[in-house]
Amino acid sequence: MAKQKKAPRPKAETPKGFRDYFGHEVTTRSEMLRKIAGVYHRYGFDALESSAVETVEALGKFLPDVDRPNEGVFAWQEDEGDWLALRYDLTAPLARVYAQHRNDLPTPYRRYAMGPVWRNEKPGPGRFRQFYQCDADTVGTASMAADAEICAMLADTLEEVGIPRGDYIIRVNNRKVLNGVLETMGLSDDTQRDAVLRTIDKFDKVGETGVRELLGKGRLDASGAYIDGVGLSEAQMQPVLGFINYFEVVQNELSLEASQARDEGNADRGSQLDNARHSVMFEFKDDPVASDPEALAIWNNRVFNHLKRLIGSSSIGFSGVEELREIFELLGAQGYGADRVRVDPSVVRGLGYYTGPVYEAELTFEIFDEKGRKRQFGSVAGGGRYDDLVKRFTGQAVPATGVSIGVDRLLAALREKGRIEAREEGPVVVTVMDRDRMADYQAMVGELRQAGIRAEVYLGNPKNFGNQLKYADRRHSPVAVIEGGDEKAKGVVQIKDLILGAKIAETATLEEWKDRPSQFEVPRDQLVAKVRDILDAHKP
Amino acid sequence: MAKQKKAPRPKAETPKGFRDYFGHEVTTRSEMLRKIAGVYHRYGFDALESSAVETVEALGKFLPDVDRPNEGVFAWQEDEGDWLALRYDLTAPLARVYAQHRNDLPTPYRRYAMGPVWRNEKPGPGRFRQFYQCDADTVGTASMAADAEICAMLADTLEEVGIPRGDYIIRVNNRKVLNGVLETMGLSDDTQRDAVLRTIDKFDKVGETGVRELLGKGRLDASGAYIDGVGLSEAQMQPVLGFINYFEVVQNELSLEASQARDEGNADRGSQLDNARHSVMFEFKDDPVASDPEALAIWNNRVFNHLKRLIGSSSIGFSGVEELREIFELLGAQGYGADRVRVDPSVVRGLGYYTGPVYEAELTFEIFDEKGRKRQFGSVAGGGRYDDLVKRFTGQAVPATGVSIGVDRLLAALREKGRIEAREEGPVVVTVMDRDRMADYQAMVGELRQAGIRAEVYLGNPKNFGNQLKYADRRHSPVAVIEGGDEKAKGVVQIKDLILGAKIAETATLEEWKDRPSQFEVPRDQLVAKVRDILDAHKP
Repeated sequence: MAKQKKAPRPKAETPKGFRDYFGHEVTTRSEMLRKIAGVYHRYGFDALESSAVETVEALGKFLPDVDRPNEGVFAWQEDEGDWLALRYDLTAPLARVYAQHRNDLPTPYRRYAMGPVWRNEKPGPGRFRQFYQCDADTVGTASMAADAEICAMLADTLEEVGIPRGDYIIRVNNRKVLNGVLETMGLSDDTQRDAVLRTIDKFDKVGETGVRELLGKGRLDASGAYIDGVGLSEAQMQPVLGFINYFEVVQNELSLEASQARDEGNADRGSQLDNARHSVMFEFKDDPVASDPEALAIWNNRVFNHLKRLIGSSSIGFSGVEELREIFELLGAQGYGADRVRVDPSVVRGLGYYTGPVYEAELTFEIFDEKGRKRQFGSVAGGGRYDDLVKRFTGQAVPATGVSIGVDRLLAALREKGRIEAREEGPVVVTVMDRDRMADYQAMVGELRQAGIRAEVYLGNPKNFGNQLKYADRRHSPVAVIEGGDEKAKGVVQIKDLILGAKIAETATLEEWKDRPSQFEVPRDQLVAKVRDILDAHKP
Repeated sequence: MAKQKKAPRPKAETPKGFRDYFGHEVTTRSEMLRKIAGVYHRYGFDALESSAVETVEALGKFLPDVDRPNEGVFAWQEDEGDWLALRYDLTAPLARVYAQHRNDLPTPYRRYAMGPVWRNEKPGPGRFRQFYQCDADTVGTASMAADAEICAMLADTLEEVGIPRGDYIIRVNNRKVLNGVLETMGLSDDTQRDAVLRTIDKFDKVGETGVRELLGKGRLDASGAYIDGVGLSEAQMQPVLGFINYFEVVQNELSLEASQARDEGNADRGSQLDNARHSVMFEFKDDPVASDPEALAIWNNRVFNHLKRLIGSSSIGFSGVEELREIFELLGAQGYGADRVRVDPSVVRGLGYYTGPVYEAELTFEIFDEKGRKRQFGSVAGGGRYDDLVKRFTGQAVPATGVSIGVDRLLAALREKGRIEAREEGPVVVTVMDRDRMADYQAMVGELRQAGIRAEVYLGNPKNFGNQLKYADRRHSPVAVIEGGDEKAKGVVQIKDLILGAKIAETATLEEWKDRPSQFEVPRDQLVAKVRDILDAHKP
């Protein structure tokens, strides 16, 4: 037998597009997920953790003509022949679970799910092939109360994780309204309809002029590229323009009405109408009118009437507006005002499968992007009603609606706003002055831990004391404990306040610290109490 | 083009060997993981969440001659040619992470990780291809303090999740001691050595007679199958027998010593030795001697001397015993007695890669197995020192030690002991008497939720009121709220105590309940307070 060559060393690398999460990144995410789960649970939603692996057949969405069904998913073939894949979202598995277990599940079935999903896509900067999703869905009811509930829950959730009211807004629309408008425009060509929807979706970015160009002949992009237009005439595009301009139209209408009311001597009515007009304006977010459901109801009423004019005689459009009205009535009854939820006809949502209400949570505060430009943070969650997903399995349409929170974006937002500390405080480090007295040092950390204080003994080579302090520094330790032979003999320990020490090192004027030494001696039996004092003193 | 056939409906099934987890199963697990993470964190361990997907190269352990490296793992090939796979444990990824990021990580690096792992194995009853692991490891130190710390942490963790002291024991051994014994026996043949180790591992099941047979000519199994023996002579197997009989040997030794001490008029010494002897006996677990580290130290001293006799002049064996002595000295200094940690030379641990101390947490209470037989619950966690895992990547040996908790077994144990409620209380259900007053019902749940009470409106078809109560029943709801037109007019709501209702329905003697109606009327504005009263009354 030939001598086997020694195998080369494997590379220590995460696969392309994957990453590892360390310490604080992991704990802040799980803490956030726990808070979200708390709200979902309070709303009556039950946890579901489906398997990460599904049959490709159950996941669906694959081209029938490719040899290997790995378009967008990570898939492999079992020895017996079944193709399996990692889930690419939490909705497709929900459809499978509901179809499989529907006889054992309550109807309607409210469930939440949180966990990683995988996409076999080209990775890019900040774009990973494994990421977290956090979903809540109600399956088995067509009631708009389910959609209203999801919107209310989404608002509560954002506040629970640390996004205060005023820093987010939930925009609600209905695909049926959009379809009604398209119907009125006489667009029967699916490609054209999709192009119009995509254009509406871009309104935020390109403004009214951009929308006009994109619906008409085309538009020169910021990058210099020319985007072909949909090719509509000026007359044809009117309903869409009316649609995206709803805000100005309704503002003007209310303004006019208010003046009329005042002219007719009805000052109260005038204020009421002004309040409604103000309630949805951002600069009024801290004004009580923004949180007044009645002001929002008046505003919404004008919006719905405007939409109805645009959809003309389309019955699908009409039912879309009525659904929106119902959702907002329910939200209003629970006290949700324009500072939390609003109608927004320009919300489209990408996924093709939405069939009714769609909603999107947007953070409204400004951040600086990587190029130093101010911009709004944007969307962190979205969802809507999809009535056909379970049908794939059972043949019966099962109405469903739900939301997905972009966990990583939400974490980024909280970090951006300083609501999550950038790093975590490390453990108290008990240094090792005498290798033979490890038992003494272990006893110290034992006491600290029993008192609920995060603590550890330095377990590296204790020879070089400087290395021990460097280690404590790398661990962001707040306190180091030192007990050499002298201290042992005297029955004391040295406590080093590392946070204070770092502050002293940073500032030029030592004066102000002179009364607060960063290292001091305490009797051994006061170790825990003194360490706790220091930790409490540094608490934000 | 031929007309495309309509695709058949996909089957709604989890892939073979996978399962879904619902509601309470999910939340009790995450609550347990949160508690475990809390202890790990207090011990200075940092969270790590590595990607679920690794390169097959980094995972290692695959046969070079199979075309597809899917022995035991789920693997697939990337378009560019790399083989990727789902992690099969949390230790192999740790080795990769440490090798990859070692310049940015503190040394020693204490990390914990929790999450699913995947095994491409034949599924069996209760045996799934995706399951949770929960690990803590210290990388980069050869200090026995790291091993002692892991053992102490494991004990604290079990108590934190609800296994009281006395219901578990952490048994500690050292592979070097085992190797020393094998060395003394002159066994150089690896197959023979492995066979001896496997036999020692079976001691718990087959007893001393069984071990004798397995080490000698062979043994007739309980199932009637004949197991070939290792083929050792009676003389050759003496060290192993001395090894597994350590308990009786040391018990006798201490008993004899105690008598001698008493005979010599030293009653105190006699009691001390008796205490040491008693400390490790199960029936003494509630006796203070079991928690006395000094009693354990005396016991351990005899065990170590006994082991040293068995390993003769083997230097590896000697260092193994010294390592055990160091571990127990450190544990003793932190107050860990025989009711929590013990030396046990019969602990082997399956995995080939352990190189030093090995430890195992066993639950000591009895349960009834599926056949109604009483048996001890057995192992729920284990680990040990492995010094060669990182070397695969870097060429340098990096000492490491760690533990893995079998999350699902631990959950099963807690359920078995009634420490986790078998099911969860459902939400308060607000029923729908009048479809047009959904807003009123939503307002009710809104109030309940704001008060922190889990609540929901019935969102199914409200036509049949019986179905609404059936739904509440299926949800295990504690309370149903009813407000029809009459109640609305009177400004009241009906509150139905469903738990009490079920109790009344169960018992024949209605007498005892006659003063406690299960349904009553309260003013609408007392809804939240009354519901809370009922929930509080039912709290365990």
